[in-house]
Amino acid sequence: MYDIENKGEEIYRLTERIFPICRSITGKGVRETLSIINEYLSSDSIQFDIKEVPSGTEVFDWTVPKEWDIRSAYIEDESGKKIIDMKDNNLHVLGYSVPIDKWVTLEELRSMVYTQPDQPDLIPYVTSYYKERSGFCMSQKMLDSLPEGKYHVFVDSELFNGSLTYAELILKGKTSEEIMLSSYTCHPSMANNECSGPALLSAIIKYVNTIKDRKYTYRFVLNPETIGALTYLSINSDHLKEHLKAGIVLSCVGDDRDYSVIHSKYADTITDKSLTAILKHKPKCSEYSFLKRGSDERQYNAPGIDLPVIGFCRSKYGEFPEYHTSADNMDIVSPEGFRGSYETLVQWIDCMELNEKYRINVLGEPQLGKRNLYPTISQKGAHNSVMTMRDFIAYADGRNDLFDIAEIIGVDPCELLPIVDQLLDKKLIEV
Amino acid sequence: MYDIENKGEEIYRLTERIFPICRSITGKGVRETLSIINEYLSSDSIQFDIKEVPSGTEVFDWTVPKEWDIRSAYIEDESGKKIIDMKDNNLHVLGYSVPIDKWVTLEELRSMVYTQPDQPDLIPYVTSYYKERSGFCMSQKMLDSLPEGKYHVFVDSELFNGSLTYAELILKGKTSEEIMLSSYTCHPSMANNECSGPALLSAIIKYVNTIKDRKYTYRFVLNPETIGALTYLSINSDHLKEHLKAGIVLSCVGDDRDYSVIHSKYADTITDKSLTAILKHKPKCSEYSFLKRGSDERQYNAPGIDLPVIGFCRSKYGEFPEYHTSADNMDIVSPEGFRGSYETLVQWIDCMELNEKYRINVLGEPQLGKRNLYPTISQKGAHNSVMTMRDFIAYADGRNDLFDIAEIIGVDPCELLPIVDQLLDKKLIEV
Amino acid sequence: MYDIENKGEEIYRLTERIFPICRSITGKGVRETLSIINEYLSSDSIQFDIKEVPSGTEVFDWTVPKEWDIRSAYIEDESGKKIIDMKDNNLHVLGYSVPIDKWVTLEELRSMVYTQPDQPDLIPYVTSYYKERSGFCMSQKMLDSLPEGKYHVFVDSELFNGSLTYAELILKGKTSEEIMLSSYTCHPSMANNECSGPALLSAIIKYVNTIKDRKYTYRFVLNPETIGALTYLSINSDHLKEHLKAGIVLSCVGDDRDYSVIHSKYADTITDKSLTAILKHKPKCSEYSFLKRGSDERQYNAPGIDLPVIGFCRSKYGEFPEYHTSADNMDIVSPEGFRGSYETLVQWIDCMELNEKYRINVLGEPQLGKRNLYPTISQKGAHNSVMTMRDFIAYADGRNDLFDIAEIIGVDPCELLPIVDQLLDKKLIEV
Repeated sequence: MYDIENKGEEIYRLTERIFPICRSITGKGVRETLSIINEYLSSDSIQFDIKEVPSGTEVFDWTVPKEWDIRSAYIEDESGKKIIDMKDNNLHVLGYSVPIDKWVTLEELRSMVYTQPDQPDLIPYVTSYYKERSGFCMSQKMLDSLPEGKYHVFVDSELFNGSLTYAELILKGKTSEEIMLSSYTCHPSMANNECSGPALLSAIIKYVNTIKDRKYTYRFVLNPETIGALTYLSINSDHLKEHLKAGIVLSCVGDDRDYSVIHSKYADTITDKSLTAILKHKPKCSEYSFLKRGSDERQYNAPGIDLPVIGFCRSKYGEFPEYHTSADNMDIVSPEGFRGSYETLVQWIDCMELNEKYRINVLGEPQLGKRNLYPTISQKGAHNSVMTMRDFIAYADGRNDLFDIAEIIGVDPCELLPIVDQLLDKKLIEV
Repeated sequence: MYDIENKGEEIYRLTERIFPICRSITGKGVRETLSIINEYLSSDSIQFDIKEVPSGTEVFDWTVPKEWDIRSAYIEDESGKKIIDMKDNNLHVLGYSVPIDKWVTLEELRSMVYTQPDQPDLIPYVTSYYKERSGFCMSQKMLDSLPEGKYHVFVDSELFNGSLTYAELILKGKTSEEIMLSSYTCHPSMANNECSGPALLSAIIKYVNTIKDRKYTYRFVLNPETIGALTYLSINSDHLKEHLKAGIVLSCVGDDRDYSVIHSKYADTITDKSLTAILKHKPKCSEYSFLKRGSDERQYNAPGIDLPVIGFCRSKYGEFPEYHTSADNMDIVSPEGFRGSYETLVQWIDCMELNEKYRINVLGEPQLGKRNLYPTISQKGAHNSVMTMRDFIAYADGRNDLFDIAEIIGVDPCELLPIVDQLLDKKLIEV
Repeated sequence: MYDIENKGEEIYRLTERIFPICRSITGKGVRETLSIINEYLSSDSIQFDIKEVPSGTEVFDWTVPKEWDIRSAYIEDESGKKIIDMKDNNLHVLGYSVPIDKWVTLEELRSMVYTQPDQPDLIPYVTSYYKERSGFCMSQKMLDSLPEGKYHVFVDSELFNGSLTYAELILKGKTSEEIMLSSYTCHPSMANNECSGPALLSAIIKYVNTIKDRKYTYRFVLNPETIGALTYLSINSDHLKEHLKAGIVLSCVGDDRDYSVIHSKYADTITDKSLTAILKHKPKCSEYSFLKRGSDERQYNAPGIDLPVIGFCRSKYGEFPEYHTSADNMDIVSPEGFRGSYETLVQWIDCMELNEKYRINVLGEPQLGKRNLYPTISQKGAHNSVMTMRDFIAYADGRNDLFDIAEIIGVDPCELLPIVDQLLDKKLIEV
């Protein structure tokens, strides 16, 4: 049906390209990242629309912040030796740090340095978007090793009235019902969280583009987390409330340790049901309730928004040790991890596309034997091979969709796809 | 209320009479079986109506097949010694085998012999109703012991435009709501599956015939499995959809190893609820979902038919080792087994007959003491003996039927029958 | 919010005052008890209305019995030595015993003496309200020790056309929706069952009287068990069906061994949900189904009455060894036990008063940071402190009340009260 063998490698390479860029919720890094993604998509003649929303725009209860431009950030000691420099790792600068250029004591330095004491070797990822601060991040061990003395703290940055950047790409289908995939582009150099999401999403766009006569219209969104989702919803929530069938936020999709779903607010949407039906047949799978939410599913499920959006991860954000530290680098993602994520989403899309409440159109059991779908010898044990088809038929009574039937009869919904094809071909089922 | 002590023996004797007959989905064996059953019923002046449906009749997606007449079948070796002969065991001939009379090599013989390799001492039960074949069944050990040489394979049978035979008996009640019991008459000499079902059903007919002022109309059906049920439904499904309250397919009801229920498609009908409520208080009980279906509950629950029909077995078909082999003989059924099955169905019928959503007709708890239904001394521990009655009253609020209350208060619904009688007598409850 | 430190002691002292009185379902003891309670309430200028219902009044299926006046009861031996005397313990006389004054043999004596053989040291509590008997209660050991001889059995009592006494106190709120607390006043000298219930209820009246602008109207009822509840319902059930939001029967609320709820008939009312939500966060908690009912929740839940009333106990009646014996004395209740019961009911009332289906009034997540409700530094682990508020907001979508949200997010509903206050103050939620 589709070639996935090289896809893991392809997505890994794209992740590698966007990894080094210093991104934040606004600014040049976001635009550079989107430019690389559009270059990747150009081979298939598809492109994200890049949108700019001015600083100061009201989005629900929030306001689009000033744009942040970061040029340089370091700390040097009295000997002129650079203790840390964001050239080495862009996590070293506090996100949205305002300019500073001054000599401070070790005690003063400590008040502007953030560490992760429980992971003393790692640089944490810390931001201060909505309160102006100058700050740096370093490992606890490095901070502990600094001798008394004077330190030169230097940040060359700017906060100015610019804009917030997001990207949208729509692939029309036969109906106006929509499937949405989103991820975010606001994290600096961390591989799984979150270079993996935009990279995987881009590969999925190419897959959807190849589906002939697709039923659903597909909406792909890349934006900064929280403020970007709020901005996007302030523009699109009425449309989405009318048209959105199912949406998934992709985050931390490049490692190979788990398959995770973060459920919607009441875990009761078609998106919860469908993705879970597939994931539970993976070798590993973790289900998290909405109480463990943390990415943009928060906004999509907020009261008054209430969209059928869930989260999909391999190792869930917040649950793997490298999360939000310098250890989230290209070593923890892999072509094999991306291959699994890609295959999962392709399976989900294929199931959604074929999903209907089918109804068998004969009364009583159909005679499968005369259609070469059943053994002509009747002996105990002989029927097992067609039991999935017979079970599908038994519950294809117009009451259950594909995922309901998979749940009832205890199989992966992907196993039902060839059966549906055969029965449609024999004209035994209809919608 | 009823005498069951000798019923087990009586049903066992009837089973013994029909066991030797060679039955299939059509033919003389079916008619001979029904004739014996009508003779058994004649002492109570009740009779099955015997119906014939011509070969070639369309029944939903199926066609009534030709009638099969089997006269003789054997294999002999070059010395004229009969290797197998259906006179010894009618499982030796493949069901619906077409005529053959020829000498074959051992290799050719193997291609027309069916065995059960995992039970090498037993003759399996095998059929080929819808594809014409000549064939034989024998034990794997016998097949393995045959020397090279020539073998004379002989089947004297006929496939001709005749008819499919089924039987129907209706006992009218005060209402047109119906309870249906069915079993099937298409299996050759196997005792539990399926001489036991028709024999038990016949005894139940006699019981129902004794119920004065019965509420329900009772419908009893004996037909060949699958094609017979489809034929019966093609004639009666509209009537049944309007009138059927509950139906049970009886199969494998003569052994004493278990009590089994095979649930309806969604396990949500009054039949599921009522029979399960009784079975769960038996010493052993197994509940099987519809995914483990195998008898005519398949057709009664098929999409578009959707009748409240479940299966009842002692050891469930497919789950006991003798199933569909020559080991399913009179040794594995017993008077004790039949007695348990008979008692269960009588309890079920009694509960169904008295089943209503009763409503207590006083406000507050009734004063049981003044009606001699309650101790007049109040001391801790003194009330336990009437707790079931008090619990029944508490939930007799017009919302729950007998089986609901039994489930809520955790008792066998049969325990509620004398309580209902007492409260009706004291005019404390009404429907 | 309220001072509970001295409340346990205060309730214990009130219990101590009413403990010695010999009560029954009618009579002077009831009136004396209510008089003490009104004296306790008088400091807050509130009073129970005392009502009298004549003997012979029909109440549903029952009749108000004659009033019982008990003056003296004892057994003496031939030497004139009092074997037992109700002056020592009023459990010694069978409740509603009719007069007797005669010399009997030991064998005759045995037929009018009640003991608790499984607790041979204790005097049981036994009554015979609806059949006239003369009787006594003593320990099994005492009975066993009595030598052959003559015994003078003496009961100076009277059954006469008097009245049944109950008490009602209503504290009006802003709405006509009502919360009812009831307990009973018919038990003689047993501390937990049932001097504790009326004493606790009286203290709760004082608390409710201090709630400014209370939403609910509060109804407090003290009556004899069963016949009193039936009498009360025969007068008030129509009003209660229209207005009662939630009701709790208090019984055995003075010990400190457990917190127990006895659920309503279907365990599906707001009362079940709300009290259970609080109790499950107590150090110990037992939930009992309605099948374990035993106090006036029986009448409030009876078919045709169907009020949302549950039972609340510390150790549940019938489940603690001292129940209905002379061992249920002031030693098994304690200020600490009463304090816990009082606190629980105050928490429940506070939660009920603030309970609404709140709705967040911004779209998307509100920006808590700008309201100083959220840390301005974003680093992993930093948000946990406000997670309960964020979870509350996520589910404050107009669909869930306070108890639903507490259940969904897994917290004590009491934890939500300050959050609701803050969010109301910030005008972020509305009803």
